[in-house]
Amino acid sequence: MKSFQKLIGGLKRLPGIGPKQAERMALFLLRSPQGEAENLISAIREARNSLRPCRDCLDFTEVEFCKICSNPERDKTILCIVEEPQDVVAFERARSYRGLYHVLHGAISPLDGKLPRDLKIEELLVRLRRTSPRVLEVILATDHDTEGEATAMYLTRLLKEFGVKTTRIAHGVPLGGDLDYLDERTLSEALLGRREVE
Amino acid sequence: MKSFQKLIGGLKRLPGIGPKQAERMALFLLRSPQGEAENLISAIREARNSLRPCRDCLDFTEVEFCKICSNPERDKTILCIVEEPQDVVAFERARSYRGLYHVLHGAISPLDGKLPRDLKIEELLVRLRRTSPRVLEVILATDHDTEGEATAMYLTRLLKEFGVKTTRIAHGVPLGGDLDYLDERTLSEALLGRREVE
Repeated sequence: MKSFQKLIGGLKRLPGIGPKQAERMALFLLRSPQGEAENLISAIREARNSLRPCRDCLDFTEVEFCKICSNPERDKTILCIVEEPQDVVAFERARSYRGLYHVLHGAISPLDGKLPRDLKIEELLVRLRRTSPRVLEVILATDHDTEGEATAMYLTRLLKEFGVKTTRIAHGVPLGGDLDYLDERTLSEALLGRREVE
Repeated sequence: MKSFQKLIGGLKRLPGIGPKQAERMALFLLRSPQGEAENLISAIREARNSLRPCRDCLDFTEVEFCKICSNPERDKTILCIVEEPQDVVAFERARSYRGLYHVLHGAISPLDGKLPRDLKIEELLVRLRRTSPRVLEVILATDHDTEGEATAMYLTRLLKEFGVKTTRIAHGVPLGGDLDYLDERTLSEALLGRREVE
């Protein structure tokens, strides 16, 4: 049983995994055909060996510059700041943005020990200084939660000296959002952010 | 990014892991020191290579007969039927049971495609037939949910022909259970199962 408990222990180290969930995963890995466990193992190894941060946007990439940064058709004068690599995937799925990204790899969260210096903020400033053509707009697309808002506020202050136009993505009623199920804060923001219709 | 998505895809195959959770786990595995990922990989490999079902109780073990089944001090006339290996760990932690176990490796759940023949029930019957000394009591300790109850009921019917005393673990108010927070069913069961105090 020792190696069973060790496997559960290893899985419990993953973020957000409690003892019950670790047990379910361990049983799955033990009972599924050998290929299943080996596929996961090689996915972990492959990701660790082949991925590195893009030299421009710091998104994970398998080459020096990621597909987006090296695409000549993307608008290099506009930069969308996101917290995590998956946020880039989400925006790309929406197919409505043609500029570049910058991945912070986290958000400011002093309680979790995440300070500004732990994020890729220095890299952002270096990028803004050296990039040509010059960046004309920075879109703050961090999450709409305490950490994301703190990060957006911090960056807003920092970006003032660059004289770059800084915007924040809109907050309001999401598609399919049923008004009477929405929290008060979202509704207040939807009201505050209202726009004239023509 | 391909290998990042592949890693997320691999993690999403684990039971109970959605896209958000898979992403968190993937980022953790990518950002943590190399040792972290390698420890998990070797825990998976080791568990898969060294664990097999105990020939008696079907709990996971690294030898032919598990520590409990091969312990001469355990009472061989009483058998506690549980769903999963971790249930054995839980009972052992309670230190109040000195009999043997039988691990079903699941519970009857037709909706999930789990039928009686997918559980270690045949092995239980064989065991009851051949074991000496004879088993005098079977404790049904499957979970107290729909699947666990269905399994307990199924086994009760099956065990009738063996003339063995069959019991079910007690259901009621758990330790620290605040009465006004408990669901009606638990309260009803606590009432029904009441015992005279002396």
